[in-house]
Amino acid sequence: MLYLIGLGLGNERDVTLRGLDAIRSCAKVYLEAYTSVLGVDASRMEALYEKPVVACDRRFVEQGVDAVLDEAKDTDVAFCVVGDAFAATTHGDLVIRAREKGVAVRAVYNASIMNAVAGTGLSLYNFGRTVSICFFTPTWRPDSFYDWVRENRKTGAHTLCLLDIRVKEPTVKALCRGIEEYEPPRFMTAATAATQMLEVEETRGEGAYSEDTMCVAVARVGQDDEKIRACTLGEMRRVDMGAPLHSLVLVGDVMDIESAMLATHEVKPEDYYEGEPPSQMLDA
Amino acid sequence: MLYLIGLGLGNERDVTLRGLDAIRSCAKVYLEAYTSVLGVDASRMEALYEKPVVACDRRFVEQGVDAVLDEAKDTDVAFCVVGDAFAATTHGDLVIRAREKGVAVRAVYNASIMNAVAGTGLSLYNFGRTVSICFFTPTWRPDSFYDWVRENRKTGAHTLCLLDIRVKEPTVKALCRGIEEYEPPRFMTAATAATQMLEVEETRGEGAYSEDTMCVAVARVGQDDEKIRACTLGEMRRVDMGAPLHSLVLVGDVMDIESAMLATHEVKPEDYYEGEPPSQMLDA
Repeated sequence: MLYLIGLGLGNERDVTLRGLDAIRSCAKVYLEAYTSVLGVDASRMEALYEKPVVACDRRFVEQGVDAVLDEAKDTDVAFCVVGDAFAATTHGDLVIRAREKGVAVRAVYNASIMNAVAGTGLSLYNFGRTVSICFFTPTWRPDSFYDWVRENRKTGAHTLCLLDIRVKEPTVKALCRGIEEYEPPRFMTAATAATQMLEVEETRGEGAYSEDTMCVAVARVGQDDEKIRACTLGEMRRVDMGAPLHSLVLVGDVMDIESAMLATHEVKPEDYYEGEPPSQMLDA
Repeated sequence: MLYLIGLGLGNERDVTLRGLDAIRSCAKVYLEAYTSVLGVDASRMEALYEKPVVACDRRFVEQGVDAVLDEAKDTDVAFCVVGDAFAATTHGDLVIRAREKGVAVRAVYNASIMNAVAGTGLSLYNFGRTVSICFFTPTWRPDSFYDWVRENRKTGAHTLCLLDIRVKEPTVKALCRGIEEYEPPRFMTAATAATQMLEVEETRGEGAYSEDTMCVAVARVGQDDEKIRACTLGEMRRVDMGAPLHSLVLVGDVMDIESAMLATHEVKPEDYYEGEPPSQMLDA
């Protein structure tokens, strides 16, 4: 049996009792560690689980997962995912490959940023499609999110923007020489996302949003130091949300109760960066 | 402190360790029991929590909640919600009233149908707005969902349809005579939802969807007997998804991986009702 277990968003104690029962019953425990990260070290998970945890990077999941599925034929294997079991599409792929191999799959659901974003006070009913914002480079400034944001805003829907995470990315040297060497982890800040989004609006010029568009940023959702701040997209370029992970919501039409909730998260003077915002966040 | 605690979707063991820690530390535990239901009796929660649980109906939450907030001024109180802490807008209202009274609020996130629907294999990124389908009566056939479904389908987005739940509804006799008497609980089936949606399409005639539109129904998500079935909306009118709760997704444009996942859930001959589908599900 392959258990696909959502670990939730905060720390190791956000696993459900059902999830912990399953993990403890498994012979082997894998942790997917590239689409998101928990706010704790794997050693704290191992202490709770009472067994070792094998961290998997993207290459492992995309290329080496057949070995995991073969193990799951004869024994119980837990594949743990930060957030919910099915939050990333790679996990759907895992289920399909498991079924092809005749391996039974059982999911244990948990919170995902996709629903916990309701902690902002915005109603989940009123969200349109979710988009991803990727780090711009000097030569690659992907703007495919723009069309979806524009469509959402036409109907007054909110847009959840998931922000880029670069974990265990090989260095250029590693790619050229075939050695194992990685860039430091990078997590996009809400400020960087706001800056990039406004740059795309300037380029595309279709008026999907502007500096005056209301947005709300969330950081470390579900952790003890969770932070939520609402302001305009123009202001968000200078708001310091602290340590990762960040997400950003472009706010659409709001009901009274949503508006009252957002007011409780209004940005304050002490929330702004002193000096220039960092162009990217380098470390957790 | 007021803890707003998501209990997840399945049974009492879907609470997170963080949530259980909070519940056990609280002097008083309330359970919101009208927007959704867990698959277990409150006595099993009480055994796990090691304390009594006070079930709240809609009237209690909308009218009597000030007493709870007053308790939360001096002691820790847990307000438990099936699914995620913020899934229903009434809970946002609770947070605002708590803040007005100077009561600190802490949320414990969990899975909600809003993210666990990804267990169908459909990507959460590709969902548009969520709609609610209410039970039709001879004189009231609410179709406001139709406009949102049409907008979602224009852009190829999937639509999650949450289906009506009627728990602790006063009988007509109770309303007339001021006595306490309730209708038996009713939970809308996926089949009833499909029937009502096709009736609305026939009335509105704007071609938002048809009998041939693909859909996928989920039942008892996260429970041991979770069931997922994909077929056309016309076929869904006769598919027996078993005990509540049911939800229905109108499928938009699908990526290859979504299509492969849906294929694993294809409806089978034994999934159909024998004879006429019941017009409504009367009991859990």
